[in-house]
Amino acid sequence: MATRLQPVPHNQIELNRPLALDSGAVLARPTIAFEAYGPLNAARSNAILICHALTMDQYVASTHPLTGKPGWWSKVVRPGGVIDTDRYHVICANVIGSCLGSSGPASIDPATGSPYAMAFPVVTVGDMVRAQAMLLDHLGIERLHAVIGGSMGGMQALAWAAHYPGRVERALVIASAARHSAQNIAFHEVGRQAIMADPDWQGGDYYASGRVPVKGLSVARMAAHITYLSEAGLTEKFGRQLQDRDAKTFGFDADFQIESYLRHQGISFVDRFDANSYLYITRAMDYFDLADPHGGRLADAFRHSPVRFGLVSFDSDWLYPTAESRRIVQALHGAGAQASFVELSSPFGHDAFLLDSPEMWRLMAGFVEAGL
Amino acid sequence: MATRLQPVPHNQIELNRPLALDSGAVLARPTIAFEAYGPLNAARSNAILICHALTMDQYVASTHPLTGKPGWWSKVVRPGGVIDTDRYHVICANVIGSCLGSSGPASIDPATGSPYAMAFPVVTVGDMVRAQAMLLDHLGIERLHAVIGGSMGGMQALAWAAHYPGRVERALVIASAARHSAQNIAFHEVGRQAIMADPDWQGGDYYASGRVPVKGLSVARMAAHITYLSEAGLTEKFGRQLQDRDAKTFGFDADFQIESYLRHQGISFVDRFDANSYLYITRAMDYFDLADPHGGRLADAFRHSPVRFGLVSFDSDWLYPTAESRRIVQALHGAGAQASFVELSSPFGHDAFLLDSPEMWRLMAGFVEAGL
Repeated sequence: MATRLQPVPHNQIELNRPLALDSGAVLARPTIAFEAYGPLNAARSNAILICHALTMDQYVASTHPLTGKPGWWSKVVRPGGVIDTDRYHVICANVIGSCLGSSGPASIDPATGSPYAMAFPVVTVGDMVRAQAMLLDHLGIERLHAVIGGSMGGMQALAWAAHYPGRVERALVIASAARHSAQNIAFHEVGRQAIMADPDWQGGDYYASGRVPVKGLSVARMAAHITYLSEAGLTEKFGRQLQDRDAKTFGFDADFQIESYLRHQGISFVDRFDANSYLYITRAMDYFDLADPHGGRLADAFRHSPVRFGLVSFDSDWLYPTAESRRIVQALHGAGAQASFVELSSPFGHDAFLLDSPEMWRLMAGFVEAGL
Repeated sequence: MATRLQPVPHNQIELNRPLALDSGAVLARPTIAFEAYGPLNAARSNAILICHALTMDQYVASTHPLTGKPGWWSKVVRPGGVIDTDRYHVICANVIGSCLGSSGPASIDPATGSPYAMAFPVVTVGDMVRAQAMLLDHLGIERLHAVIGGSMGGMQALAWAAHYPGRVERALVIASAARHSAQNIAFHEVGRQAIMADPDWQGGDYYASGRVPVKGLSVARMAAHITYLSEAGLTEKFGRQLQDRDAKTFGFDADFQIESYLRHQGISFVDRFDANSYLYITRAMDYFDLADPHGGRLADAFRHSPVRFGLVSFDSDWLYPTAESRRIVQALHGAGAQASFVELSSPFGHDAFLLDSPEMWRLMAGFVEAGL
């Protein structure tokens, strides 16, 4: 067993063109795994690309093959839904560097016949988007009706608009940012150090060893998970309630519900995600700063963009706070681009974009239909 | 070497009375290490107890024996200073459970002749304060002019006022809370799991092994350190600046200054702190909830308290945010106690209470002198 991830089939294609990465490295024949929903019309004009977050995947509206859980936006992407698969052809691709079928550190390096592990090149959000563009080329889709994403998915939507303004009509960016802040980088670095501190990580070469950095990846996930929730939400959901006991044990068991919950989040994550992919994707996010190639002027990334932008933030999201969305909107307006922005109220912090949110759904539906 | 901590002498006394702990366990002859500054007057009425935070120590105004650094409030506690050691007798004791000379998991268990390790009983903030009260008994100090502390030190100051209202004239509580929130517990649990995930932790029995959970404790410290700083402060201090390089390396080195800084914080911590003590003290803080014995009514912990309370919070502190201080003040007013409260503005987050803060210093000086 290469990882604790069960080997499952994914809908994959191997691209017959090399993918040139921002680092200068090249993936000769990258594999992209993706899911697609709804018919592509004859004009090939009804495609919507959905971009996934750090630990999400292409199973946006279909059952996850490892967890058996429904797709992470299956309430949104469905026939007659907010993103109506009777009318739109929806595509979601596993990002480069991930572990659900697209090329990543667990993939076989053709040069050695063994998994790349840490020999996999470091990728960027720009690389993820470039790979998606190659996938669309392969599928014969020149132009997207919309690109939509939350969190790291929103970063990809922004990168799509910045790099391929002629291929995107609309970009909907939810609970996201145009750059990773020092605090964002700091939390990711804690997670990476936790993984690398685990002796079962073995410098990344754990795939053939039968040992996986379970503890390190769990700790990384626990730390990250706190950032996905709001302080108020945690207080409301858990407070100081004890877990299956009437009194404190004066020990180090999970006395509190929040401890038990976090431990569960950490352990269950290992069964659906590869530790090296976690390293690579967090790194890609840390490197993300759309203003960087423009001397820090974010507006210059979108000068006279024809793309119609929509931005949504949540008031209790402290990972990608509203201020980051406002900064993007200001840059877009400064660039002469068309951008709308709504801050939604939610107690659930960053996680809100994955939860039932009729307000967000209404905004999404309106945005997808706007100008039609 | 029992830990990576160098064995250094501390000013210690062994109490000749047992310390009954909240857990029901008893420490037969607890050792308390402490520092004292300035003369005790003949009436024994000029003593000020300073309580330290989680990873701080009794070296409030003297050189730390391991790091060689000045005391953590040496600008505050000095002759002619905000807390004037020409006029006050200032005491600061290492908390029970810590590792700078007071009884803790690294201490020798008289029952076995070996370090307690995880056989050391779980302690509480109440136990820390009870041990300090016994120390004052031993020193012949019945009543404190003031008890002062920041962060966990503020919790102790609150517990002093709640448990010994007749022994405390003033309690100054800085950047603190009357209970640990779910988010506070969550961050501590991440740290504990990081330590316990390190195979060098060895179930806590590492003292004689020559191996210490360096990596686990480092990761714990890194995660905690983020919570001590504000997002704005991190952005101002580090932003996305690279560390000693002109361009990203497309690797997993510490490309960003914030990464390098955090790694340094983690590694250097191991040389001055014991991993098991970190487990015990974080647990004590998680257990802290002054309202708990009163059915959740915090005011009942302070009913008709004669203590004069001062509370200070910092607007960018998200670990113990202003709302927690306000909650205490409301409870104190509801209890008929005398309480003043000031929120200070600072970009430095929770850490602000340890940094140069002339505004805080003025408040401290005024509070110590109030009513004299």
